Amino acid sequence: MAKIDKINFSTPSGFTEYLPGEKRLEVYLLDIIRRVFESYGFTPIETPAVERLEVLQAKGNQGDNIIYGIEPILPPNRQAEKDRSGEAGSEARALKFDQTVPIAAYIARHLNELTFPFARYQMDMVFRGERAKDGRFRQFRQCDIDVIGRGKLSLLYDAQMSAIITEIFTAINIGDFVIRINNRKMLTGFFQSLGIAENQIKSCIGIIDNLEKIGVTKVKQELEKEGISPEQTQKIIDFIKITGDVDDILDKLKHLGESLAENSAFSLGLTELETVITGVRNLGVPAKHFAIDLSIARGLNYYTGTVYETTLLGHESLGSICSGGRYEELVGTFLDEKMPGVGISIGLTRLISRLLKAGILNQLSSSPAQVMVVNMQDNLMPIYLQVSQQLRQAGINVITNFDQRPLGKQFQLADKQGIPLCVIIGSEEAAAGKSSLKDLRTGEQVEVMLEDLAKEIKQIYG
Amino acid sequence: MAKIDKINFSTPSGFTEYLPGEKRLEVYLLDIIRRVFESYGFTPIETPAVERLEVLQAKGNQGDNIIYGIEPILPPNRQAEKDRSGEAGSEARALKFDQTVPIAAYIARHLNELTFPFARYQMDMVFRGERAKDGRFRQFRQCDIDVIGRGKLSLLYDAQMSAIITEIFTAINIGDFVIRINNRKMLTGFFQSLGIAENQIKSCIGIIDNLEKIGVTKVKQELEKEGISPEQTQKIIDFIKITGDVDDILDKLKHLGESLAENSAFSLGLTELETVITGVRNLGVPAKHFAIDLSIARGLNYYTGTVYETTLLGHESLGSICSGGRYEELVGTFLDEKMPGVGISIGLTRLISRLLKAGILNQLSSSPAQVMVVNMQDNLMPIYLQVSQQLRQAGINVITNFDQRPLGKQFQLADKQGIPLCVIIGSEEAAAGKSSLKDLRTGEQVEVMLEDLAKEIKQIYG
Repeated sequence: MAKIDKINFSTPSGFTEYLPGEKRLEVYLLDIIRRVFESYGFTPIETPAVERLEVLQAKGNQGDNIIYGIEPILPPNRQAEKDRSGEAGSEARALKFDQTVPIAAYIARHLNELTFPFARYQMDMVFRGERAKDGRFRQFRQCDIDVIGRGKLSLLYDAQMSAIITEIFTAINIGDFVIRINNRKMLTGFFQSLGIAENQIKSCIGIIDNLEKIGVTKVKQELEKEGISPEQTQKIIDFIKITGDVDDILDKLKHLGESLAENSAFSLGLTELETVITGVRNLGVPAKHFAIDLSIARGLNYYTGTVYETTLLGHESLGSICSGGRYEELVGTFLDEKMPGVGISIGLTRLISRLLKAGILNQLSSSPAQVMVVNMQDNLMPIYLQVSQQLRQAGINVITNFDQRPLGKQFQLADKQGIPLCVIIGSEEAAAGKSSLKDLRTGEQVEVMLEDLAKEIKQIYG
Repeated sequence: MAKIDKINFSTPSGFTEYLPGEKRLEVYLLDIIRRVFESYGFTPIETPAVERLEVLQAKGNQGDNIIYGIEPILPPNRQAEKDRSGEAGSEARALKFDQTVPIAAYIARHLNELTFPFARYQMDMVFRGERAKDGRFRQFRQCDIDVIGRGKLSLLYDAQMSAIITEIFTAINIGDFVIRINNRKMLTGFFQSLGIAENQIKSCIGIIDNLEKIGVTKVKQELEKEGISPEQTQKIIDFIKITGDVDDILDKLKHLGESLAENSAFSLGLTELETVITGVRNLGVPAKHFAIDLSIARGLNYYTGTVYETTLLGHESLGSICSGGRYEELVGTFLDEKMPGVGISIGLTRLISRLLKAGILNQLSSSPAQVMVVNMQDNLMPIYLQVSQQLRQAGINVITNFDQRPLGKQFQLADKQGIPLCVIIGSEEAAAGKSSLKDLRTGEQVEVMLEDLAKEIKQIYG
């Protein structure tokens, strides 16, 4: 066939793809995440990649994001068609850029078919026209859970999120991590009690949210730029510097509450925080995995109560590896109903990219096979096929090598794909109902009766 | 909050989504399919949803499909920006409409990082501007496997495809099915030996491929319309009417081969078919699950050898539930290299839609939880949380009901989600370290010591 000249077959900028060993790592992580999500009763859904543009843009939903509109392209032989397969131009559509607008639309679409509190997970791809640098992707997978109530929603769901985060990152085994918990009502109440104007509070919260990035001095400067008085600024700095273990901080906050001007948001937020912390403890989350951090606010304006970030200790520069919080006004968008929710999100594509780069995770072997049945002689193929099927029925992943090549080449082929074991059956072994089982990692080779092969392999492979 | 008026929050036409019980069915099927794919050593990859338009359109790849181009849409507050985040208009991009172009591009992109024969699976979403009717979707999931070789590829890979199809549909348990196998070389050779012109052969193959849909009389008419002589037409009809068990047909084909004008394609195709059938038998595929069907051709022009269709017996109107074949010229598109491949594809979204509609499959329960720990008294919540965590650690999916409501309402809530078991712990039970375990399906209720609860539940559920 003729080579197609001048076609650039590389992926479009920002749209990356995995090699098999990387994809297998993603699948492995998705399995862990899914198992934990489901163990808490979260049920899977998936919303279409494409939504109506007016849905994605409702109420300023698009935010700062560049999103991708879609437009039908007729094939060359159908350019004359007018109706574009019913693809009326009036129905503008675009790729979803996150899961929050879609979940709001999903609930509006299926309100009477769902059971509330509705606890769902999604592990879908989302699309953003991000500048393709700084490890940002234009297509990436997010693993989200949210519980959504009608009218009200217990704070224990907030607590449960911490248990879920803890189980996931413990299972992934990437080292020590801390879930930093705060409460936006308490933050807001604190700013109110200082006499800071309502229209300044969100900016102030945004500024202290950057504490870790920019440091105390810069936070001070930015607050003063915002028109906050030096006295107020000092109080804010004192506030976000409240540190210690969870009980210390709760004590200090209670004292602070007494000294503050009467403020119901502050005390409500503090009570919420205490309830969440009690829940986290009752759920058995180890103390080392959670902390109160008064500078955590999550930039997103929709959070109204509990907020979380998760830091990988020793790798703080990675930023939060799992974040989320409580919101009130998000899901009811299309329904005129109060539907409070609490959720967390793992930006899996970005996380994998960073953990691979930092050497915290490694890609898996490129093949899921544990065993290669090598081909010593074409005429023994019926036996190779039969043995392969026996092993598969025992739950072992097997590649049968169909091409007769020098044995060393076949071992190489297995090794290159990370397949640890080779089953070798020559005519003598076949006649005796035996095989040689070679472990490519150690070079060891043992003789095994064919009927014992599955058991032996499971023992070796674990 | 104010309701957003006039926003149509329905999914865009042709972009459907699942309710939880449907999505859980899809996840269940994907797990089965994945397990079987991996047991044969197929490794997962995923290519981006978006490719360069020139890649999707190379060599007429777009075919008859309406595809979706993507265009960045700036947020309202960034309309003034010129660079559109580096989204140069010169780089036209579109959503992939199948997995064949992307796998060709993937192999071209990663040729030196992959091991050949390269056996991969993909279960990605693809996008087509189909007329949104007749159970067609504009976004749908395809489960594809292909093995791709460099230069050559053993016919045993073709045989293996039948074993994989058999295992998947046996595991899904949807009733009896038959994989109908044919060989395009043999078909082509047969038409050549009748003296039919090369430029007519593809049309002829297309016509007999419709035998099942249009019947013999119509096939005859269409062939004659194509300019095939009555004598040739009769020979074609006799040919596609060759039926019987696999050995009968192979015998008849051998006899036919002797009576035909010397034709190497016919005998090569027949030898290939025999080799594949022998492989299928050696792989232990039960005889009832495969047949030779000389009218199967697969419309797609790229198939060059073995072709498969899979029919669900008693539900022939569903059409083929898994199809595929051998091709030579597909994957090398971007590389000027001979890369023969063989693959099969399950159009999962369409299959689920049809199997649900036909009542062959049912959606699963809407919750993955097996157990609800009900809330009898808020003050016992620490015990409920602890018990829930114990059960989760034992591998049981648990919803803890945080809201104290009448017991009947809580049972209803569990039942509505298909959660079969409720754990009831009142103050007396708590004091005695006991619980009542209620099976909502039977109404039976037994007393179980808390430390035995996980074991008991696994016995009931497992």
